[in-house]
Amino acid sequence: MEIKKVKSIRAFAPASIGNVSCGFDVLGMAVEAPGDEVELTLTSDQRVTMKKIYGDSGRLPLAADQNTASVAVQSFLNSINSSQGVEIILHKNLPLGSGMGSSAASSVAALVAINHLMNEPYSKKELLTFALDAERIACGAGHADNAAPCLLGGCVLVRDYNPLDIVEIPTPDRLYCTLVHPHLEVKTADSRRILRKMISISDAVTQWGNVAGLVAGLMLSDYPLIGRSLKDVVAEPIRSVLIPGFDEVKAAAVQAGALGCGISGSGPTLFAFSDALETAERVGKEMKNSFLKNGLESDVFVSKVNKEGARIIE
Amino acid sequence: MEIKKVKSIRAFAPASIGNVSCGFDVLGMAVEAPGDEVELTLTSDQRVTMKKIYGDSGRLPLAADQNTASVAVQSFLNSINSSQGVEIILHKNLPLGSGMGSSAASSVAALVAINHLMNEPYSKKELLTFALDAERIACGAGHADNAAPCLLGGCVLVRDYNPLDIVEIPTPDRLYCTLVHPHLEVKTADSRRILRKMISISDAVTQWGNVAGLVAGLMLSDYPLIGRSLKDVVAEPIRSVLIPGFDEVKAAAVQAGALGCGISGSGPTLFAFSDALETAERVGKEMKNSFLKNGLESDVFVSKVNKEGARIIE
Repeated sequence: MEIKKVKSIRAFAPASIGNVSCGFDVLGMAVEAPGDEVELTLTSDQRVTMKKIYGDSGRLPLAADQNTASVAVQSFLNSINSSQGVEIILHKNLPLGSGMGSSAASSVAALVAINHLMNEPYSKKELLTFALDAERIACGAGHADNAAPCLLGGCVLVRDYNPLDIVEIPTPDRLYCTLVHPHLEVKTADSRRILRKMISISDAVTQWGNVAGLVAGLMLSDYPLIGRSLKDVVAEPIRSVLIPGFDEVKAAAVQAGALGCGISGSGPTLFAFSDALETAERVGKEMKNSFLKNGLESDVFVSKVNKEGARIIE
Repeated sequence: MEIKKVKSIRAFAPASIGNVSCGFDVLGMAVEAPGDEVELTLTSDQRVTMKKIYGDSGRLPLAADQNTASVAVQSFLNSINSSQGVEIILHKNLPLGSGMGSSAASSVAALVAINHLMNEPYSKKELLTFALDAERIACGAGHADNAAPCLLGGCVLVRDYNPLDIVEIPTPDRLYCTLVHPHLEVKTADSRRILRKMISISDAVTQWGNVAGLVAGLMLSDYPLIGRSLKDVVAEPIRSVLIPGFDEVKAAAVQAGALGCGISGSGPTLFAFSDALETAERVGKEMKNSFLKNGLESDVFVSKVNKEGARIIE
């Protein structure tokens, strides 16, 4: 049987900052760049296949039941009882195991594409459940703090999973994100395993005071409050041990004018917020220099908060 | 020596809901009524004295170094190196040990009065430090989650104590508070002692997700989100044991249309939020009935969020 290509589309989904420092496992924020792109083609074959992946140096699985993009699309098709054939080409621009929401970006781009090609049976928010199926493959747990902001854009609170309660937190206009990805890899599962199972009530109170401060700061466009609230006493003290030079790089960011700085997701990427583009670029330069002094090359990405989320680009 | 009365003033300070359910030790909210009143008179004597307390059935100390009102005033006067004499009459309308911020209301009313009579050397926010000195006398710890909203009005986040970081969280216009005070007394110190020193990371994440949801809900005027976020998995499961019939009374509140219900401060007063006055009154009635079935008389107070805080009334 000859497989016919019916319709084709291309979608983009951005990197995201999981946790946003104090908001461990509940907050995430999308940036404008970088992001993954997916080319999705409907075929007459009744299978979902990964045709090609660019940019991963051959490290991601092509097996359809193991790649987050194809798992998400399969989950989507199952929900509408469709046996539509789909061919996926993934342009992997986000580094793997970087803490930038790489796995979520691939599945979300694929979901936005298939939803578009199938005449939008779902809202963006509704697509999240399929992205979570994919996150289970990638991270062993269906966390939404990357997938939700990647889909919807902006800063997103995942208040609850039963049922899923997603709250979009407005963000101020002059908030610039610097992402600095040092060339080392931390697996989410490893980074999660080293965390403590119990924490002191005093640390917990400090943390939710900061979470409240961060949400209020974002909504009030109170940049100094955002900066004061970017403190994580729960995950950062432990996870930072896996990032050589963490304390110095963070100090360099603040010294260069950043409002605050923390680990993006489970690391090793660090993020910093600034209230001006110029500052955000200077912050990136100083963080990169500081990583270099610790023997690590790194890539720097500077952009605004992405207010739109994943989108069709072609 | 004859003591001359120089100048006199009267001030009001409202009850407040400490914690606001999930916001343990960081959030507080002032209500319009009830509240304490203080009459403050400058005298030619160089001492701060408690002249009379009405409404406490003789239970509060008249010794100036033990009453929160006089301790706060003394702390204020020390800060400006003043040996001004002051005579305080306290009209105690808030029940003691009720979880309604009774001790804070007395000190805050006294502070607003003395600040006014001394030509306002301090802003309201600056007065907080003196109220904390008084809270240390009353509760053994200088918590600000009652004193700050009592002073400033509205919902207040105490993000940090070193240095003190107080954030005013805007509240929606149609938020009505029902306070139901059952006739039993719980001491803050006792209620604090029974709490766990360590909590699971999973409970902590649930709690700060709810704190973020509550802050966002208040600022977005999203009443259902406020309701969904009023969940406390840390203090309520333990403290509620000290309140006979707690589960039934809470269920009665929700059944009657409340957005949510929880323990005010360290209890035993319960609070409920509603989005209409009529609902808030019905909620109060049903909660009172439910307490009665559990053998407890109670008082019901219904009012809006107090957006002004403590004030001079005469």
